[in-house]
Amino acid sequence: MTSQHDEWRELGQQLRVDSVRSSSAAGSGHPTSSMSAADLMAVLMSKYLRYDFGTPDDPRNDHLIFSKGHASPLLYAMYKAAGAISDDEMLTFRTFGSRIEGHPTPILPWVDVATGSLGQGLPVSVGVALAGMKLDRLPYRVWCLCGDSEMAEGSMWEAFEHAGFHALDNLTAIIDVNRLGQTGPTMHEWDLDAYRRRAEAFGWKAIEIDGHDIAAIDRAFARAVETKGQPTVVIAKTEKGHGVKAVANLPGKHGKPLEDEAAAIEELGGMRSIHVEVAKPDFRGQPHEFPTKPLTVPSYELGTKEATRKAFGDALVALGKANGKVVAIDGEVGNSTYTEEFAAALPDRFFQAYIAEQQMVATAVGFQVRKWKPFAVTFAAFLSRAYDFVRMAAVSRANIAVAGSHAGVSIGEDGPSQMALEDLASYRAVHGSTVLYPSDPNQTAALVPQMAEREGIVYMRTTREKTPVLYQPGDEFHIGGSRVVRQTDDDAVTLIGAGITLHEALKAADQLAAEGITARVIDLYSVKPIDAETVRAAGRETGAIITVEDHWPEGGMGDAVLDALAEEQPHPVVVKLAVRIMPGSGTPAELLAAAGIDANHIADAARELTGRAAARGRSPVEVGSGRRE
Amino acid sequence: MTSQHDEWRELGQQLRVDSVRSSSAAGSGHPTSSMSAADLMAVLMSKYLRYDFGTPDDPRNDHLIFSKGHASPLLYAMYKAAGAISDDEMLTFRTFGSRIEGHPTPILPWVDVATGSLGQGLPVSVGVALAGMKLDRLPYRVWCLCGDSEMAEGSMWEAFEHAGFHALDNLTAIIDVNRLGQTGPTMHEWDLDAYRRRAEAFGWKAIEIDGHDIAAIDRAFARAVETKGQPTVVIAKTEKGHGVKAVANLPGKHGKPLEDEAAAIEELGGMRSIHVEVAKPDFRGQPHEFPTKPLTVPSYELGTKEATRKAFGDALVALGKANGKVVAIDGEVGNSTYTEEFAAALPDRFFQAYIAEQQMVATAVGFQVRKWKPFAVTFAAFLSRAYDFVRMAAVSRANIAVAGSHAGVSIGEDGPSQMALEDLASYRAVHGSTVLYPSDPNQTAALVPQMAEREGIVYMRTTREKTPVLYQPGDEFHIGGSRVVRQTDDDAVTLIGAGITLHEALKAADQLAAEGITARVIDLYSVKPIDAETVRAAGRETGAIITVEDHWPEGGMGDAVLDALAEEQPHPVVVKLAVRIMPGSGTPAELLAAAGIDANHIADAARELTGRAAARGRSPVEVGSGRRE
Repeated sequence: MTSQHDEWRELGQQLRVDSVRSSSAAGSGHPTSSMSAADLMAVLMSKYLRYDFGTPDDPRNDHLIFSKGHASPLLYAMYKAAGAISDDEMLTFRTFGSRIEGHPTPILPWVDVATGSLGQGLPVSVGVALAGMKLDRLPYRVWCLCGDSEMAEGSMWEAFEHAGFHALDNLTAIIDVNRLGQTGPTMHEWDLDAYRRRAEAFGWKAIEIDGHDIAAIDRAFARAVETKGQPTVVIAKTEKGHGVKAVANLPGKHGKPLEDEAAAIEELGGMRSIHVEVAKPDFRGQPHEFPTKPLTVPSYELGTKEATRKAFGDALVALGKANGKVVAIDGEVGNSTYTEEFAAALPDRFFQAYIAEQQMVATAVGFQVRKWKPFAVTFAAFLSRAYDFVRMAAVSRANIAVAGSHAGVSIGEDGPSQMALEDLASYRAVHGSTVLYPSDPNQTAALVPQMAEREGIVYMRTTREKTPVLYQPGDEFHIGGSRVVRQTDDDAVTLIGAGITLHEALKAADQLAAEGITARVIDLYSVKPIDAETVRAAGRETGAIITVEDHWPEGGMGDAVLDALAEEQPHPVVVKLAVRIMPGSGTPAELLAAAGIDANHIADAARELTGRAAARGRSPVEVGSGRRE
Repeated sequence: MTSQHDEWRELGQQLRVDSVRSSSAAGSGHPTSSMSAADLMAVLMSKYLRYDFGTPDDPRNDHLIFSKGHASPLLYAMYKAAGAISDDEMLTFRTFGSRIEGHPTPILPWVDVATGSLGQGLPVSVGVALAGMKLDRLPYRVWCLCGDSEMAEGSMWEAFEHAGFHALDNLTAIIDVNRLGQTGPTMHEWDLDAYRRRAEAFGWKAIEIDGHDIAAIDRAFARAVETKGQPTVVIAKTEKGHGVKAVANLPGKHGKPLEDEAAAIEELGGMRSIHVEVAKPDFRGQPHEFPTKPLTVPSYELGTKEATRKAFGDALVALGKANGKVVAIDGEVGNSTYTEEFAAALPDRFFQAYIAEQQMVATAVGFQVRKWKPFAVTFAAFLSRAYDFVRMAAVSRANIAVAGSHAGVSIGEDGPSQMALEDLASYRAVHGSTVLYPSDPNQTAALVPQMAEREGIVYMRTTREKTPVLYQPGDEFHIGGSRVVRQTDDDAVTLIGAGITLHEALKAADQLAAEGITARVIDLYSVKPIDAETVRAAGRETGAIITVEDHWPEGGMGDAVLDALAEEQPHPVVVKLAVRIMPGSGTPAELLAAAGIDANHIADAARELTGRAAARGRSPVEVGSGRRE
């Protein structure tokens, strides 16, 4: 073992040298945070990791996730040592156009998920490990390098809880306890027992070691691999900047290149060019496949009423039966979101996230790493808990579906804590996202299967209340489309709604029609991408648009419509009706009225607007609280 | 003790009966989740709580926070028993216009913060307790009733960690372990030891009891009050729906009224009208006051460069010295956000949140409960971690300042995980929020003191890079304003920027001026509220507006401008330049160019737009990747 240990020590030094070199070349980066974990990673890649760098998508590969993404110089040094990237490419670190980015992203084929927002890599690792155990049913292991600073994130403890609960013995977390955060000491510094007590309380096997003792690291990983029935955490006492006295265990050395690169390299024993032949995985297994049968989309009869949340639940079961890759994860509200139907029909592909929305989304991201098609589902309001995870999922180029029920004031009595009123804005502002807000159960059923096929973050907002079935079973709806529900040759105004407000718009159109005002009504069920052509045509043909949404005025459907019209000349007058006062409790009808987004307020706004068009120059008047003052 | 215990038992039954009655009257609500904790609360309000319901703002009052906000029927039953509300008002539960909302909000003067998004009440309680110990320096206690389901939220463990770290012996958490969540059993059901192990690992005193044993509850609370140097958690085994066989400890009974109200009341021993004289606090103490001196706003000389994040840090120290209520909380990045200056100058009012953004915002919310003026500060990207806390802070009518540094692609090499590109959208979509994005250090310094005076969630986005000083020290800037930086009588186009992009717009205006195209340039530092009049005037006078923002295209400054123009006739052409591709690493200049939001792209867009105006009818052409396709 001794000569092998010497080799690994040498490799650790090489990883340090290369971390110093790449960050010096870049003029920025986190070499000291890399140096602390270099010995841990040297042993891991030399003996324990089973990974074919030539076929990174092979389902049998292990997974290595740097939860402490700022230690990217170390990760890239490992890729170089493994022969995956050249030294030259490694030295393009942080330069424009290079895939060797400041923090790892899946632009590199060996990176599963983007990290750099601390506290996310371990939750995602739990998702990957859960996929290995319950979905793929393959013996790959997940290795996750964590920083000690990020142990302060609650999301790490959601991950500890879920990994312990699911007895994920295919998961090893490695905490690089280098004692120093960005600005100063961590809360627990080198009190390894503090981490051990917490980890054990959450059901993990915990192993404390000196993270620079190669033999101890070797033994710890061996024990991790042997441990059955629980996940393992290796709690490693390390020195930030280990190996270079000018920075080792010193404050003020976070996130910057070493001052004297040459001296540091010399102190580390100079450059090396060790190549590591990383062990290949066992190529015999194949991912488990779930049986399927042809898709039967649920249908709802005209004249009946149903909630889109229910249609979502029905459609998800139907999709799951037809597509063996589809998986559902719910935040302990399955009897409200109707994922309980999926849980009953397809229990092997249903995952209870309990009330841990961050872990719920992280699990989805982990599942899609392994090409599953996850749907993460809870009340739309509580998805805001996982917003950073969704943001990072976009950086990860992850393909996940997210559905939120109980949107807007129309949920009624439960009050504002349960009402999503910012979800359209927050999900529109996710790069590459899709935002759907169906108005009808058949439409919902048509869109759900498309969510599984679409790239990026695909969000669907559903309504708690039952609403009338508007469309025929089998009617076609596609992402990016809209439906003009009412139209004549001389429409005086256009009403644009989605979800609950489309139904209010239709009632308003009835009122207006009785007064001789013909209103076009557009169902804008695809908020992003928006059907800009239909919106623009309505603007040109009617000159007046009223948008109405069960959402704050900012960033939602109304703003999406304005964006589609930004360069139009001439430009229609656009009145945005939205929720502008903090709602309380009440019936859905009372709250829609109080918010100024019910049929009466829409009709009032339309009367005022068409009156204005008839007598240009009249100043606008206040028509409802949904309208700006 | 026995007769007293009998009285408390009777009170517990009354609280149950009233929980049943109010939710039956409402036709919805969570009586069973209230019944499990009724005995705990009966003992608490009878003997341990020290609270003057007549003067809820008295700084010496204890605080009672229902982290399990859905147990609102129990809370309202307690208010009735204390004489704070009438039986009639209690029975207005969940009706429109009533302050007895579905989940508690501070519309009621005895409610500190809105709850109902689980996992938030305990973190806020930690903030209040921290205020008691470190700021007010008063002996009030904080009592927090937690559900067992919400223990799955990572934010609860952030709270456990911080309370343990700060040795908050003025805090008592009570976990109502009723075993059943919304859809089924919790992860740990009645395994009280699971909670005890975790709590003890995080440094808490843990006491396990039968939550329906009045004597045991009494002893547990007595021990909690006696415990010094650590917070206490009372882990109480309870039955959901205790006292009524039709619902007790049964699945499927969550969040709905009892089927037979009359029978339940009879089984509970009938209605009672026990009045509890809740003990008053010790009125002798006064909140600590920190010494102050007159405000000296920092100043920056024309011709120099400085980053707005640095000006924010400077201004926060200046404000803190002048206003003894101002407190800073940072997410372990104080050397990047420059709150390190505040920490050095005013260490008694600086709080290290470590990398726990949810607890950071919750601490701020807790501090403002006690009328402190908290500034919660970290990288803007990582504020997304606490979005649900900010959403709920708005429901709480909380007054907090939040500042995020390192916005946009202009941070450069660190890459997208560290770039806030959705913060303007997400913060605009918070009810009653203010969104500031200063372009200049003197402007920043002028705005920071206004943040402390403003109601609601007041967000400031700052820039990492140093930018030229544009304004004189002492120039006035107010929230809701803007600054027209360039203007002539015949401007052909308006360029609107803020923060880093204002500087690019100014460079673009220079390019255009050299070609004879005069551009108006507006510094839209107040994104919400927006200076709509100035934007509209620019639209009328130039007919063409280019907005440019270091942010995704959705929901940010461009959408705010479009909203201000929605009803304008005639309407200017508006071109939105924004970040439309996922950035990587690079220099700030490279990334601004790649995003299509640098001076060259702005100038190109202006040339195209003014050319289009000169030849109406020409179709628009693509001018840069910042432009929509």
